[in-house]
This record gives sequence, C-alpha cells and structure tokens, in this order.
Amino acid sequence: MKLLYEGKAKQVYEADEPGRVVIHFKDSLTAFDAVKKATIAGKGELACTISSKLFQFLESRGIRTHFLGQLSATSILARRVRIIPLEVIVRFKAAGSFCKRYGVERGKELAIPVVEFSLKDDSLHDPLICPMSVLALGLADEEQLQELQKTSLDAALALRGLFAGKGLELVDMKFEFGVGDDGKLYLADEISPDTMRLWTPDGESLDKDIFREDKGDVLAGYREIARRLE
Amino acid sequence: MKLLYEGKAKQVYEADEPGRVVIHFKDSLTAFDAVKKATIAGKGELACTISSKLFQFLESRGIRTHFLGQLSATSILARRVRIIPLEVIVRFKAAGSFCKRYGVERGKELAIPVVEFSLKDDSLHDPLICPMSVLALGLADEEQLQELQKTSLDAALALRGLFAGKGLELVDMKFEFGVGDDGKLYLADEISPDTMRLWTPDGESLDKDIFREDKGDVLAGYREIARRLE
Repeated sequence: MKLLYEGKAKQVYEADEPGRVVIHFKDSLTAFDAVKKATIAGKGELACTISSKLFQFLESRGIRTHFLGQLSATSILARRVRIIPLEVIVRFKAAGSFCKRYGVERGKELAIPVVEFSLKDDSLHDPLICPMSVLALGLADEEQLQELQKTSLDAALALRGLFAGKGLELVDMKFEFGVGDDGKLYLADEISPDTMRLWTPDGESLDKDIFREDKGDVLAGYREIARRLE
Repeated sequence: MKLLYEGKAKQVYEADEPGRVVIHFKDSLTAFDAVKKATIAGKGELACTISSKLFQFLESRGIRTHFLGQLSATSILARRVRIIPLEVIVRFKAAGSFCKRYGVERGKELAIPVVEFSLKDDSLHDPLICPMSVLALGLADEEQLQELQKTSLDAALALRGLFAGKGLELVDMKFEFGVGDDGKLYLADEISPDTMRLWTPDGESLDKDIFREDKGDVLAGYREIARRLE
C-alpha cells in the first residue's frame, strides 16, 4: 500500500477503493511536542480498538466521522479527508496545559464546558488560537467554525455520558476534523486515551498522562479503558 | 496623596473626591514582561497627553471611559474602578506576539479584525485566553464579555479612523476595563503609544516597538504622534 502520511502515532495508506484510506496505529507514544517518546508493544492495538469502538458509538449518536470499519487489530478503514490544521479541545475540568497556562489547580470545575482551538503546527508548539483568529487567518470559514464547535461539544458530551456509565470521568479531549470529497466535515484522527483524559472517581489517570507524568504502567490504563468499553 | 497601586508605567493615588483617583504617568518603559526596562525623561508626559486626547476623543464618540480630565503634564483625574484582570487586544493587521505565535509575517492582512483576550498576570506572562475560558473561569459574565468585545472593537475602529485622518495606521491596540461603583464597565488604563502599534505609510513604527526592537529614538515617535494629534 502507498504511504500517504506518517504522523507521530499513525500511518495513513491509500486503500484499494478510491476515496478511502487505511490508518495503521503505531506502538509509539509521544508527549510534549515529541520531546518525550517511547515505543510500547500493544499500545497501537489498544488505541485502534478503543478508537473503533468510540467512532462507532459516535456514529450511532448521529456524529459524522471518517470511520468506516476496523480492518485488523491495529488498522481501520476510513474516508479520505483533507485534515483541517486545527485541534479542537473540549474541557469539562481544568487539566494539563490549561492549568499551567492560567495557574489553576488540576481538577478545578469549569463554570461551562470550554471548546478551545489550537493551530496544528509542531514547530509553533500547537499554539492556542481564538475563534476570531481562526477566521481572520482563513483557517476555517464561519460555518465550519460553528460546526467544529458544535460537533466537538456534542461528541464530547456524548462520550462523557458513555464513560460516566462505565464509572469513568471524561475530563477533556482533543478532536481533529477533515473535509471529505463531498465538502462535508468529518470527525477524523483517533479517539483514544492518547487524545483524552479519563479519570477514575479517585482522580487517577487511565490515559496518556500516565506516560506524560511517569505515573506507572500506561498500558494498564489503556487496557482498563478497553475492558470497561467491552 | 495615598498611593493605591503602582504598576510598571503608572501610579494610582486616591483623590480628594470620593470615587476618584489621580493617575500619574511615569517615565518608565518596559517590554517583554519587564525583562527590558528603561527610564526616559519626558515619556510620562507624552503618554499622559496622548492618552488624555484619545480618551476625550472616545468619550465624544460615545464610549464610556474612566477619564475625567487632565490634571497636569503627567497626571489625569479618573473614576475609580475595579480593574478586570483581562487585556483586550484588537488587531487589524498581524504584528508582535500574533506573528510569533502563528508564524505569520508582520503586516499580514487579517480577513476580519480580531478581538483577543489575555489574562493580566505577569507571572503567567499574560496568557491568551479564549472567550469561553473567560466565562468558564468566571473572569467576566456573558454580558460583560459581549460588552468588552463590542466596546473594544468600536473604540479601536474609531481610533483607527482618527489616525487614518492623520496619515497613520493603527495596527493593533490593547484596552483594559474596570467596573465602576455603579456596576458599569469603563474603558480604563491608558491609550498611548505604549498600548498600540501605529505605523507610517512606509510601515515604520512610531510606538513602543521602537523601544522593544531597538529601532531608534522612541520619544521621537511618541512626539510625532502627539504632534499629529494637535
């Protein structure tokens, strides 16, 4: 298969069918702009399996995603999209960069869920960008911006409800979107413990923060999430 | 007079009349979170005179400000307000931190004017904060947020027009607001070459960028602005 793109955690290949891609989940874990890196056997499989389940769940809730099916333990079939260079972050409680940026404690309640954008550019360290600047720089148009915000919030709220039913708290998460050949927006990338914070009722991390903060066996966290989603 | 507050460029004293303060403009110039500092005799007077003229102009355009009158070459009488810990930046073209943050060239045209907030906190380096996070952290309520955005944009557009008539381009500027004893929002702080970027038709800076970027005699720039406003 022809490799179209290789990112830090995934490879995207051309599929046989036109307009389709095969996304392979790698065993690599990176944090802090890839300053911290590791290869952990089995991580790709867990991220792929959890992503597949969560994409299916979101599709069942009427959210349009690029997901078309799981092909193997570490690969999915997806619609080919042109990725919009924005990360959309939905936050229910303060954590990670939000705490550091504004000097607030981990777990602080937010009066409303926050939808934040950052410009996808490693060389600039994915800087925060406000909706007006997204428009001013032509990164999305007004209609796309509204849809990015609404779909991200809808998806995050649906996932928060799903996880609450499994005894876990979705604290924040990151989405990426792409534009399909039909001009429509599709929720893309992956939806896994690499892209969200999930806490137990005690505030223990089951996600990539285990790796970021050296808090133990990151794969045990991912496995626990997969188990609860079964 | 009792000193109520001392900032990097101004001192605020209690006035004789209740609910009023005297603001003294210092000769100090600071940049990059005060990593770069200087004292330049005459700068306080120019900042005070220019601010007074611009506050009067904005009042004449129906913008509510804290300004009540110029008292001396370096001081104004102002309404006492409780400063909201947000800086509101209005940008017409890309410059300064916006260029650095998003990797765009100085002077790049923006498709729409941008209103940006930053959290006023030197220890956190005045981080950018999006409107939803302002609400989520309780820094302003929805009504205040709308008014901060609208008043800042109105004021910046009025000033842009004023300066255009003087052959100068207002590129961006920073506003601060306070809440008065009457609960209303007042445009506060100062409006001077310390808080705006003003370019000649050749793109030459007449503002604090002369100091930030060691581009020559900063006071000559301020004097030129004052002269054009006469």
